[in-house]
Amino acid sequence: LHQQVRSAGIIGAPFSKGQPRAGVETGPDQIRAAGLLHRLQEQGCAVKDYGNLVFEDVVGDHPVGRVKRARAVGSANQRLSEAVQAAKKDGHTSVMLGGDHSLAIGSIHGHSAAVGELSVVWVDAHADINTPLTTPTGNIHGQSMSYVLHELRSKVPVLPNFSWIKPCVSAKDLVYIGLREVDPGEHYILKLLGVKVFSISQVDQLGVGRVMEETCDYLFAKVKKPIHLSYDIDAIDPSVTPATGTPVVGGLTYREGVYITEYICQTGLLSAVDMVEVNPLRGQTEQQVQSTVNTAIDLLLGCFGRVREGYHPSDYHLPEP
Amino acid sequence: LHQQVRSAGIIGAPFSKGQPRAGVETGPDQIRAAGLLHRLQEQGCAVKDYGNLVFEDVVGDHPVGRVKRARAVGSANQRLSEAVQAAKKDGHTSVMLGGDHSLAIGSIHGHSAAVGELSVVWVDAHADINTPLTTPTGNIHGQSMSYVLHELRSKVPVLPNFSWIKPCVSAKDLVYIGLREVDPGEHYILKLLGVKVFSISQVDQLGVGRVMEETCDYLFAKVKKPIHLSYDIDAIDPSVTPATGTPVVGGLTYREGVYITEYICQTGLLSAVDMVEVNPLRGQTEQQVQSTVNTAIDLLLGCFGRVREGYHPSDYHLPEP
Amino acid sequence: LHQQVRSAGIIGAPFSKGQPRAGVETGPDQIRAAGLLHRLQEQGCAVKDYGNLVFEDVVGDHPVGRVKRARAVGSANQRLSEAVQAAKKDGHTSVMLGGDHSLAIGSIHGHSAAVGELSVVWVDAHADINTPLTTPTGNIHGQSMSYVLHELRSKVPVLPNFSWIKPCVSAKDLVYIGLREVDPGEHYILKLLGVKVFSISQVDQLGVGRVMEETCDYLFAKVKKPIHLSYDIDAIDPSVTPATGTPVVGGLTYREGVYITEYICQTGLLSAVDMVEVNPLRGQTEQQVQSTVNTAIDLLLGCFGRVREGYHPSDYHLPEP
Ligand SMILES: [Mn+2]
Ligand SMILES: [Mn+2]
Ligand SMILES: [Mn+2]
Ligand SMILES: [Mn+2]
Ligand SMILES: [Mn+2]
Ligand SMILES: [Mn+2]
Repeated sequence: LHQQVRSAGIIGAPFSKGQPRAGVETGPDQIRAAGLLHRLQEQGCAVKDYGNLVFEDVVGDHPVGRVKRARAVGSANQRLSEAVQAAKKDGHTSVMLGGDHSLAIGSIHGHSAAVGELSVVWVDAHADINTPLTTPTGNIHGQSMSYVLHELRSKVPVLPNFSWIKPCVSAKDLVYIGLREVDPGEHYILKLLGVKVFSISQVDQLGVGRVMEETCDYLFAKVKKPIHLSYDIDAIDPSVTPATGTPVVGGLTYREGVYITEYICQTGLLSAVDMVEVNPLRGQTEQQVQSTVNTAIDLLLGCFGRVREGYHPSDYHLPEP
Repeated sequence: LHQQVRSAGIIGAPFSKGQPRAGVETGPDQIRAAGLLHRLQEQGCAVKDYGNLVFEDVVGDHPVGRVKRARAVGSANQRLSEAVQAAKKDGHTSVMLGGDHSLAIGSIHGHSAAVGELSVVWVDAHADINTPLTTPTGNIHGQSMSYVLHELRSKVPVLPNFSWIKPCVSAKDLVYIGLREVDPGEHYILKLLGVKVFSISQVDQLGVGRVMEETCDYLFAKVKKPIHLSYDIDAIDPSVTPATGTPVVGGLTYREGVYITEYICQTGLLSAVDMVEVNPLRGQTEQQVQSTVNTAIDLLLGCFGRVREGYHPSDYHLPEP
Repeated sequence: LHQQVRSAGIIGAPFSKGQPRAGVETGPDQIRAAGLLHRLQEQGCAVKDYGNLVFEDVVGDHPVGRVKRARAVGSANQRLSEAVQAAKKDGHTSVMLGGDHSLAIGSIHGHSAAVGELSVVWVDAHADINTPLTTPTGNIHGQSMSYVLHELRSKVPVLPNFSWIKPCVSAKDLVYIGLREVDPGEHYILKLLGVKVFSISQVDQLGVGRVMEETCDYLFAKVKKPIHLSYDIDAIDPSVTPATGTPVVGGLTYREGVYITEYICQTGLLSAVDMVEVNPLRGQTEQQVQSTVNTAIDLLLGCFGRVREGYHPSDYHLPEP
């Protein structure tokens, strides 16, 4: 069935300079080592691995205002944008393995450059929509959406190595799921722009079934655009995915997390996915690391047709005695 | 109230040859040692313990095609079928403590032989509906339903020591709850027969409240038949019940698991229950074993009238000063 | 917004004689040490800390019938009642940090003495509504509601040091959430008085969203009275809040627990809150103690305007380049 026609273009992005904690750059290799490619192929998905991007060191990457390592982030995302464009031009659903969530800048930019207007579903404990002027920490992984939203153009100064970025997403095409730690500036922006948010409170209230129904009703109200799913592993509860840089209690259950991917996949519109913020060094035990990495894989399998009720090929033949 | 008229006929089935892992044969004694009988009596349930069945060794139990230990499984289930028939004839709700899930063959057969047509509610991570010809592993605990369904008769070769088994359940009288690891052949069969399935995705979508409503609406649409509840402990999430042979992430919560038993009990139609796949040797700590065994007991208490809102005898008298 | 006008009057009640386990008297200091006051202030809540109450030893506090340490409990609650009245007269939302749940007697009494008729929302694994004559244990923390309900006046003998207590709550103004371990006498009383109960089964069935809707529809059907929220930390699942005296499996999730506080807060009617039964000595690891204490704090933050979707001050100004 639908499993047959899918193909995943895997792009490793071993980059950690959008935030201060070492380890998240090993995410792509850990996710591959745990069997992502084989598991995708097993379920009938074609896979092309573009390998890991190589990011050059940037010297003199001094803070710009509060913003840390802008030049490295700008340059890495430009490279990533090109890689995503190439994967899209090859006909794949782009799969960006982070690395930190600042990589969504290049991933969304490249995706949009290849296919035009997008819907973005951002699954995260955080909104990552601070501007360079509202950020409390200076870490760009908490600012990614501010660089790609049309509506924030006048609020965002152009940072060094960021001049190639053109905003490409409309606020009305963005849905957040799982938010539970939102800064005041971010909350102001979300309200100002009228962004659709299903915080964890709404998931509690409505259940994940209705949240996904309403997400798609909202996004598809006018035109069905290709979906960019940007999945921060910290959306999931830290009891399941502890190996991440900024865990927040009270997250999505494993089941809710997977349900989101199953649902998005079944729209037939998923065109690119980011899986970010898996940081093996933040696990306290090997079991914690494995649980985090395996959950990331299960989420990606859900993006490519795996459903928990099971599957059989359309030409399956039941043997008789 | 209803607690008063119930009686449980406990049948221990210390059998593990439907699968390869030692330990599951100690389930019945562990569940008893943790206080099942006393707890049932405490809540006003009459209890008759038929003790443990004794299963003879079978020599020369070579594989038949892919199927492992068919002769031992066939012979043990014949004995179990007779025990269940005896318990039903004594007027009890039959309680089969496994042992592995291949024992559902004899339990369902004996139950049907005693009372006629049944509804079957199968709560499990797995469908256990492979035929001897579709099984990827050869383990009969993954094939049980194929031997008892009318609709699969022509698809299932007769194995040694299986000739006494007559299919006795219609596909329309079967509901699955909790599925999340279904083989392709199983998925094909479920679709072919139009079996009602509430996979974990459906539980996510609908909530356990609506799942149980729809389960009973479906089963009771025409005639209310006695219910056979076949409960595999691996239906519950491995964080709660890790001591089992084939755990699968993303399972039912403890609360959902208990809710199912409360709801089935309140139909007044529960006539036999299997509690299987508790394997103390698969727990990594004593705490893991206890959590698994205690959950099995709580599920059985729910089958016999325990409700979490509490209970008082109909003749309760409130003391005054 | 609403965050601005709130003020919390914190009353520490280091008392443990309503139950037998040492440690719960350290709850107030542990909750303060983990940063409650600062966290409340950070979210725009005014805070007045009244410090810890001092409870005198009572000599000769022999059992009265089955009831243990009645004189100490009566005397401590009289002091607490006065402290709550003072906090209410100072214009605060009263926050009583327990200590054990017998302290709800004085907290509710004082609250009612200050503001008149109340609605009581009791979030707990237990109903705590045994009378001195039905109690199976004699511990008064399992009897608190029986002393304050009008309808039980004739069922409750007057204990030494209890003569100051006048029943002040009507059964129709009481809602329970989270019950899962209810004694027969308690169940009889709940049914006799027609008390509204959302046991954990109902939370499973309806979801926490509808439970809170129905709670408020029920309480506000006629008149909107000030709300007394009495929160026993053992309402939450022991996997989250293990450091408590009488944990019961199958509790509210962290998210459900917080949702309740967010919802009650948004009614604008919360007038007093008890946070009880945090017992650091019952944690087996430091992590268990921290998780319990931090959850208590998050519940209290939810009572004072914290919402997981985030917040910005009404005068927030978005900086531009
Ligand atoms: Mn995040
Ligand atoms: Mn993020
Ligand atoms: Mn199973
Ligand atoms: Mn099974
Ligand atoms: Mn309690
Ligand atoms: Mn209590």
